[in-house]
Order: sequence, then structure tokens, then C-alpha cells
Amino acid sequence: MKVYLDNNATTMLDPEAYALMLPFFTEHYGNPNSLHQWGSATHPALKEAMDKLYAGLGASDLDDIIITSCATESINWVLKGVYFDHILDRERDEVIISGVEHPAVSAAANFLKNLGVKVLELPVDGEGISGVEHLRELISDKTALVSVMWANNETGMIFPIKEMAELAHEFGALFHTDATQAVGKIKVNLQASGVDFASFSAHKFHGPKGVGGLFIKKGLELSPLLHGGEHMGGRRSGTLNVPYIVAMGEALRIANAMLEFEDSHIRRLRDKLEDEILSLEDTTVVGSRERRVPNTILASIKGVEGEAMLWDLNQNGIAASTGSACASEDLESNPIMEAIGAGNDLAHTALRLSLSRFNTEAEIDYAAAQIKAAATRLRAISSTYAYNPNNYK
Amino acid sequence: MKVYLDNNATTMLDPEAYALMLPFFTEHYGNPNSLHQWGSATHPALKEAMDKLYAGLGASDLDDIIITSCATESINWVLKGVYFDHILDRERDEVIISGVEHPAVSAAANFLKNLGVKVLELPVDGEGISGVEHLRELISDKTALVSVMWANNETGMIFPIKEMAELAHEFGALFHTDATQAVGKIKVNLQASGVDFASFSAHKFHGPKGVGGLFIKKGLELSPLLHGGEHMGGRRSGTLNVPYIVAMGEALRIANAMLEFEDSHIRRLRDKLEDEILSLEDTTVVGSRERRVPNTILASIKGVEGEAMLWDLNQNGIAASTGSACASEDLESNPIMEAIGAGNDLAHTALRLSLSRFNTEAEIDYAAAQIKAAATRLRAISSTYAYNPNNYK
Repeated sequence: MKVYLDNNATTMLDPEAYALMLPFFTEHYGNPNSLHQWGSATHPALKEAMDKLYAGLGASDLDDIIITSCATESINWVLKGVYFDHILDRERDEVIISGVEHPAVSAAANFLKNLGVKVLELPVDGEGISGVEHLRELISDKTALVSVMWANNETGMIFPIKEMAELAHEFGALFHTDATQAVGKIKVNLQASGVDFASFSAHKFHGPKGVGGLFIKKGLELSPLLHGGEHMGGRRSGTLNVPYIVAMGEALRIANAMLEFEDSHIRRLRDKLEDEILSLEDTTVVGSRERRVPNTILASIKGVEGEAMLWDLNQNGIAASTGSACASEDLESNPIMEAIGAGNDLAHTALRLSLSRFNTEAEIDYAAAQIKAAATRLRAISSTYAYNPNNYK
Repeated sequence: MKVYLDNNATTMLDPEAYALMLPFFTEHYGNPNSLHQWGSATHPALKEAMDKLYAGLGASDLDDIIITSCATESINWVLKGVYFDHILDRERDEVIISGVEHPAVSAAANFLKNLGVKVLELPVDGEGISGVEHLRELISDKTALVSVMWANNETGMIFPIKEMAELAHEFGALFHTDATQAVGKIKVNLQASGVDFASFSAHKFHGPKGVGGLFIKKGLELSPLLHGGEHMGGRRSGTLNVPYIVAMGEALRIANAMLEFEDSHIRRLRDKLEDEILSLEDTTVVGSRERRVPNTILASIKGVEGEAMLWDLNQNGIAASTGSACASEDLESNPIMEAIGAGNDLAHTALRLSLSRFNTEAEIDYAAAQIKAAATRLRAISSTYAYNPNNYK
């Protein structure tokens, strides 16, 4: 049996979204900007896709949703755009991010730090999230931008975005959320959230890899990251990736239509798998279930190296990860585990399991059995755990 | 009959490249960075695609070819990266571009100008290109970057890139070429060209829209435009768009295999079409045929508004443009026509026809007849031309 449990890294393209985009490769292949029928043949599908994005994300007609190549582009755009628009002339000189942001945020912020920007990091609690109280301690009238993720990619923990955006606005700061791991997993209403900017990526909700977007609240300026031929109202240049935009719109429509299924069926399967893991002794899972998106488990199985577990599971047809796929080629410890104060040895035991609506109950039962069997096998050869589990620190 | 003659705006995805990428949407959909079989299943095809790009562009193993979302991204990366790396600390403070660059270059340069960078524009001759002599007049030891396109998107004229790169290096400046309209139309050997950076986009050579690349000569640093999860050796973050990378590699392989066909068959069809247009009185074509890529015609038909001609041709199933698709939604005059000194009235008569290997001789014969018939029709209702063609200025 093959069981894909790495949906926070990337997802399968939804078959209906796939079918909808195919005609735009070799049949309706025109450039939407062109003044002929090959160009205009793309317009109805593009409009429909944009309508799905606006409806699916709760944006108003006056807001902008700008298509980008991925959330990483959207995030870099916000951080660097705010640098050029508000920080370079020293109007304000601080950026606040949470301590557990995706590398796209933290590395872009680090780049700004090298340019003289003060970057402050919110601490996280034992569940791996930051609250409004953490933000209140750091924010000031020098803060240009607060950037906090909607849901964490490794733990699935949901941040209090609305309250944080309100607080940011009290201090005249802009608020950006990396909503990549929230969109398609929980209800995301960008107008109601009050955020100024929100980044998202199609391939996290069964759209294609290589397309995403940036929500920009009505009336807000943001220096472009990609200057050029005035596509998308001059905000993001580059010939439109018509097939992927069509697929992203449809993928979001389907994902939103499945949210109730996600919150009931997927959540039940996730909880079942989590219960099975926690039935082993010396195991923990980060964060309370109620405060997490419904599909994610970040577990720690003492004495079992995450990499070894991945290898064992992979041999048995199961895909999982030790954390963000964006950093998984190096064998470092899990940064979330470190952020919540786990020791170095525990941080190396991280195992992230992320489900999707395509997982079946039989798959979850199989995966649970394989994980438990693997834990037993690997603990048996663990130099630190095998002989003295109770003393294992 | 339908005849697509707007291949400099965008191309049909090659059917073989299309077929090759399809399994990576719903079957081998893993994230290449993931440590499991869904991830590693993408590696052979990705490696093969990268090998095709290195071979097809004449890059050495020590050079970097970094996948981006389009040439616009690659171009913005170079101009802004050089700004951060060499201009912000005032090591050097000038950028030189040609006067006929694509908006991605000119708008990004304009953004730098607003940050205090001196942007100098090379003049162009009557054929719409700049020579080494133009560069020699402007370059100095204050020049950080010279950015000149390999082939012009509207005229197809080829610039003396190798000689210009040599001159730039004499002054210690970096040299970037926007090779978007050259790749797939003529032989492009990046090592032999001596350039430091080269941008390209798949959808100009029958690859998909929304993927491209940046060539970075071995050993050169360039601050990332997209910081994040350390993809592509830390140079460009964002989950890899596996299907499009696979398709781009194959599209380039095929395009290069067809270069001889392009230079014989397509050139002959282009010349035939051009001869037909020039058989009308009061028509001109910009630039000598020998110095152009084989597929492009930028014609001026006196008394015939380019927009009116597009409309007429479109009614008869023919796709053309008045210039760059990246600016074609506004009804401005053609900037190349203006750059070479054509009057405002002539600049409004621009008609760009760009062929591909998928055009047939029958299509070209049909298009020629339609263009001539349209010119006659439109001249008959032209307020400036109809009654007194010989006095038309």
C-alpha cells in the first residue's frame, strides 16, 4: 500500500483542476494580453478563475489578488516592497516576525537585517504559537511591518491573526500573513481577518506547483518585485501562466467546498492516527488538536531519529517528513521543536504527518501500524533508548 | 484558415514537451526536496531537464542555470541583485541599457533610477540596434552593469552581445543579456558569448508560460530576489515546478534540434511573407534580414493603423501584433519605431508578424493575401492616405 502523508510539503493536483487546465497548453495557448482571438480565448477562463479566488478567499472587488509564482515570491514581495516603500527613507525601521515563520519570511527578513533593518522575533509558547501579548511587548511606532503566519507548516497551529492585525494597525504598522498552510484547510476570509497582505500557494491545496498569489487590501501601495510589462495592473509583470491560474482557481473552489469534510472526516482520521502514535510510550504531539488545522501532526517519538523513521516508512510505502520540505535536504533538527524548548535530542525525533482529503481510512490504519512497528524496530537499535527507556532524557 | 503569427508574444506548448510533463501533475507529484519516493521519483526527469538546459544553452557544469518563473523575474533579479551587491554601497552607481529593451529591463532600471542609480540608455541606429561604438561612448569605471538584449522582441534584430560583453569587462562592469527572443530561434552559446548573466523564458520557444531561467557565470555572486528555503543551492527559493521544468528542458532540446529548419524553412517563409508585404507601395520593414532572427517581421504599412490591421486580420483568423504583447493593451505607438526615428504617424502603423516551425507554406500564402487585402481595404478608409498616397508623409 502507498500512503502519501506529506501534504504540507506539496499535494497531488486535483484531477478536476487538472482536466480544466489542459486545453490551455496546446489549444488556447494565446497570450491574454494579445489583441486577437488566441488571446481573448483565454479571458473567460481567467475571469472565472479570478472570481473563484476572490470568492474563495473572501476578498472584495476593490482588493487586489495578484498572481505570483509561489508564496515565496509573494512573501519576498511584501517584505522587500515595505523596505523600499517605508524603511529605506527611515520612516520606520523595524519588522516583527514570529519565531517560527517559514524560511521564506525568516530568510527575507534576514536579508533586510543585513541592510540595517531591525528585525524582531516574537517568542512562541509551548504549543509553538505567538499570541497578541507577545506582539504587544515588541510593537512600537517604529514598526513598519508585522508578518505572522496564519497556520504553522510543521505543527498546524493556528495563530490569532485578526487580533494581531488589529494591534499592528493601532501602531500604524502594516500586517502580512503567510496563509500558505491555512488556505484550503480552514476557512480563510481575508476581509474579515483585517490583514493588509496575505500570501498563498496553489500546491498546498491541490493546485499546481509554481503558482500562488498575494492579496493586497484595497488602496494599499506596494512597490513591485517584478517590474516590467504592466501585467496585472502594473503590480506584477510577466506573461500570465494561464493553465495554472485556471487550475488554482478550480483547486481553491473544490478545497473550500470540501472544508466541512476536512473538518470532520480528515480531522477524525488525523485524530485516529495521532491516538495510535500516542499509544506508544514516550511520545508527544505538539499543540492542542482544537487549535490546529485538521490535517497535521508533529510528533516526537523518543529515541527514534526522524530521518531513520522516514527511511523506514518510505521502505513501506509511506511518505512523511521531519518538518518543512523547504529545508529537509539538510539533516538538521526541527526548528519548531527547538523554538518550543525541546532539547536537541528531542528536536531530532520530529515526525510530521500531514493528511489530505484523498487519504482513506484503510491508509491511515496501515500507516498507524507501520509507524508503531517502525518505532519498535528503531528503538531496538537506538543507542540512547533501547536499554533504558525511562532514563532517556 | 487559422494562422498564428504572434510567436514572439507566446508560443504553443510543443506536443512532445506537453506529453513528457503530464505524469508530474497527478502521479509523480512529490516535492523534489522530500526524503521519500514521491520526492525522489521526480529526480531523474529533473536531472534530464537540467542537462538539456545546460547543453542547449552552452553552459558549463560550473555555471549556474537557476529556474525562475519567467524572464521578467530573471531580469528583475539581475538588476536588483546588482543594485544590492554593487550599487547600494556606492562601489559603482551606473547601469547602462539599450534604448529598445523589453519593459522588464527598462521598468526595473527605472525603479533603480528612482533609488538614485544613474541609468544611461544606448542610442540605436536606423535598424533599431546598438553597437559596441554606442557602448564605448557611455561606459566608464562607474558602470556596475550593462544590460543589452540578445535579439529584439519586435524587430528580431540581433545585437553584438559578445563584443559588448568584452567591452563591459574591460571596464570591470558586469554584463547581462535578455536572451528571451534569441533562445530557440538562433544558436545561443552562453559560454562562448562571455556574458555574466542571461535571462530566458520557456514560452518563447514552445515551452510553458510561467517558467524560465537565469544563467549565472561560474563563481559570480548575486543576491537572491526570492529568499527562503534554500532551493536551487540557495539562489532561488520556492518549491520546484517539476512539470514545467521537465517541459522546458524538452522544448529547448527540440527547438535546438530544429534550428537548421528554423534558419532555412522558416526563414524562407518569413522572407516570402515579407516580400509580399513589400510588394505593396509605401511599406517598409525594420532592419536587414541577415541581421535578424529568422522568424520576425516588423513592418510599417503607411496609412494603416496597426490596431485596425490587427482587428481586420483577426476577423480573418490571423494573429499578429503591433509590437510587444507586454504593452499591447494600451493603444500606444510602437516604441521601436519611435526609437529609430519614425514619426508618430508611422509608429502607429507597426505590424509585427512572428512565425514558428508550426506554420505551413499554405498558411503563409493565406496570410500574405489577407494582409494585402486588408491594407487595401483600410487604406480606402484612411483619412490621411486614401486620396493622396504620394503626399502621405
